[in-house]
Amino acid sequence: MLSDKKISLSEAEIPRQWYNVQADMPNKMAPPLNPATMKPVTPEDLTPIFPMELIKQEVSQERWIDIPEEIVEKYRIWRPTPLIRAYELEKALDTPAKIYYKNEGASPAGSHKANSSIPQAYYNKAAGIKRLATETGAGQWGSALSFACSLYDLECIVYMVKISYQQKPYRRSFMQVYGAQVIPSPSDRTQAGREVLAVQPDSLGSLGLAISEAVEDAIGRPDTNYALGSVLNHVILHQTIIGLEAKKQLEKAGDYPDVVIGACGGGSNFAGIAFPFLADRFSGKSSVRALAVEPTACPTLTKGIFAYDYGDLGKLTPILKMYTLGHTFMPSGIHAGGLRYHGESALVSQLYHDGFIEALAFNQRDIFDAALTFAKCEGIIPAPESAHAIRGAITEALKAREEGKSRTILFSLSGHGHFDMAAYDTYLAGDTRDVPCDEAQLASYLSCLPKVE
Amino acid sequence: MLSDKKISLSEAEIPRQWYNVQADMPNKMAPPLNPATMKPVTPEDLTPIFPMELIKQEVSQERWIDIPEEIVEKYRIWRPTPLIRAYELEKALDTPAKIYYKNEGASPAGSHKANSSIPQAYYNKAAGIKRLATETGAGQWGSALSFACSLYDLECIVYMVKISYQQKPYRRSFMQVYGAQVIPSPSDRTQAGREVLAVQPDSLGSLGLAISEAVEDAIGRPDTNYALGSVLNHVILHQTIIGLEAKKQLEKAGDYPDVVIGACGGGSNFAGIAFPFLADRFSGKSSVRALAVEPTACPTLTKGIFAYDYGDLGKLTPILKMYTLGHTFMPSGIHAGGLRYHGESALVSQLYHDGFIEALAFNQRDIFDAALTFAKCEGIIPAPESAHAIRGAITEALKAREEGKSRTILFSLSGHGHFDMAAYDTYLAGDTRDVPCDEAQLASYLSCLPKVE
Repeated sequence: MLSDKKISLSEAEIPRQWYNVQADMPNKMAPPLNPATMKPVTPEDLTPIFPMELIKQEVSQERWIDIPEEIVEKYRIWRPTPLIRAYELEKALDTPAKIYYKNEGASPAGSHKANSSIPQAYYNKAAGIKRLATETGAGQWGSALSFACSLYDLECIVYMVKISYQQKPYRRSFMQVYGAQVIPSPSDRTQAGREVLAVQPDSLGSLGLAISEAVEDAIGRPDTNYALGSVLNHVILHQTIIGLEAKKQLEKAGDYPDVVIGACGGGSNFAGIAFPFLADRFSGKSSVRALAVEPTACPTLTKGIFAYDYGDLGKLTPILKMYTLGHTFMPSGIHAGGLRYHGESALVSQLYHDGFIEALAFNQRDIFDAALTFAKCEGIIPAPESAHAIRGAITEALKAREEGKSRTILFSLSGHGHFDMAAYDTYLAGDTRDVPCDEAQLASYLSCLPKVE
Repeated sequence: MLSDKKISLSEAEIPRQWYNVQADMPNKMAPPLNPATMKPVTPEDLTPIFPMELIKQEVSQERWIDIPEEIVEKYRIWRPTPLIRAYELEKALDTPAKIYYKNEGASPAGSHKANSSIPQAYYNKAAGIKRLATETGAGQWGSALSFACSLYDLECIVYMVKISYQQKPYRRSFMQVYGAQVIPSPSDRTQAGREVLAVQPDSLGSLGLAISEAVEDAIGRPDTNYALGSVLNHVILHQTIIGLEAKKQLEKAGDYPDVVIGACGGGSNFAGIAFPFLADRFSGKSSVRALAVEPTACPTLTKGIFAYDYGDLGKLTPILKMYTLGHTFMPSGIHAGGLRYHGESALVSQLYHDGFIEALAFNQRDIFDAALTFAKCEGIIPAPESAHAIRGAITEALKAREEGKSRTILFSLSGHGHFDMAAYDTYLAGDTRDVPCDEAQLASYLSCLPKVE
């Protein structure tokens, strides 16, 4: 008999603290700047859209931040998530490598995003907020915030990137079942949306624009705050529960990863699984590698530049020093909608810049090929975003086979693909196109970066 | 702090034997009859469509049947499933009752159906079969068999009831990702399908007809067997793993149910959770109640009669003594496609007839109302089939509140509703209609039963 396929933890073993990489990273991230003054952002700049507890987490330099018991209670709905040994995939790849994956698709909302939506809803509720506005690309974050708002009895309004709104009508219904209001972006409800519609009435939208719409909505109403599903430090912080659990689980299995892999859009899933392991590297305890996988259609780390840029099209959010393709970048309508963001977490960016993180980009057809292999072996149909991590894991496993060396691979399966079947249909019909980012166009996007002294 | 929300078992605690209710039920079920000879079916009658191991299970009177280790290995992909305490639902209902549910939606195929598709694929593979034909209503069984066939490298052909095929295009894609071929039924590939199309070209199909098509397909090819997702004794047998796990889990929680509830179409989910508990009632150890919940649109137990009838429209399957609405019954196109079957497991029927099982029927709008309440409290969006069990549990919980008495309620959440969002859309738009079965029409269906001496 094989060892256990799923390495489980009890609810009592849910981590009681999140890990804050800011305490340990050798070079601190550059300070975010206020887009109006170009001076470093102050906590007061953020109070119109975030509650103070989240602002404190955003800037904290403490290594460990306590998770309130009220949040743990909600995490217990689905956490700890299983760590699964991909025996069948290993066999199919004929690799000496051991492959583990953390199944974040086990959450009711279908992805890791609930790890941050729950605390964000909790801290906002505690601060007296009645309504949260947000954006969603693939729909995973919108679903997770809708779910959290239903648990905490908050109103939820979701600006959904129009191409996803069209490709995934059932994602919309999913959010509505939890009681959320879902608006395709660009919309005519905000200045940012109207400006784009005036120039390009058939715009398919982008995460950057949808963020502007949600922020504008939140600024305009005192009962409303804004919630972001990735990029920001407090979101990354909440997501470290993935890697913290995975560490405990691998320890139970008597194992430790040589490489930790995550799909990378804004960075929250990748950072969530990788940062608790990178902590061991900072302290000299291990030489674990961290591999971020992104689409060639939106190659922020592999083709972007490390510079100050706006987080959104409307220039409402703080300016971050990050890898960026330019805030005016409009990626092709690829199916991994959650990875269509021009920028990148400042923490991930700094660590990538400093050589602690590697990155790879893959085309769509490679991704779906990996997704089908995985589904047929392991049973789970992954979200196209998650299939990037699978593709990365397969690459590492095949390298191990070539080298005739074992190695331990850990990746994050960020979510299931139950609302991505139209994309699978397209792939099965042979109609999926590879649409790598046009480098000439990229140069023009990069010319629109703000001037920072 | 509350007790654990999820009561987990380790993989080592997966039951190693299925429970066979035939060993214990006070009155045996009447023998199935061969539709050609009207004599009791012999094992030889069944060999054209089933492997001998499953035929043996069909007729076995042994109380416990060993689960081969090769099947346990596949069960370990997702089993044991969590038993979850519905704290949030209890709070919302303000009930003194304790509500537990077994989340069978945790399977990669999305429902309890994989509990039987895995052993069926295994025994067929072991018997040298290359290809399995089946039918599917809601798509849950078709998905589960597609999943199992991909794990065992078997071809899979699924006749999908046309109304479900239309209502759930992504269920089709889901099966195709696993490599299955999906055909809307009625089709022109079989005699049974062609006969219906000749009379009624726009027929929406039924489970009874799709069964005929799949059986005909299997009879016609020596490399092909047939696989059924409910009704038959061996399917019920495999599903008892649900109740067996739930018993271990409740024991860990120090609890025992007053009532066990399942949605009831062909009976496999209901029997799967209820029979291991009814075993205690047969042996005088408990007085646990078993409650089957069905739709008013297809009220087999609550409005049908207990008589010999065909299992399918084409009269190819054995004649079973069961509760039936008549094999010509064509239920309305309600959204719980998995519960649109005219008949019922002979085992469930006999036990219902003998007073060991209670039954309730609910209208569609009641069901979706319960589903939304559950989703907002517990986070999980249930399949409409499963929402019948939720509705039953809520009814029991409200009764407990009225009586001011605690009681322990256990229900089976047979699957998630990720491929039922169109049905939720209809409900949210206020367009869901209640379509109870027409009693005058029912009388005419019941006049078509076979004459048995």
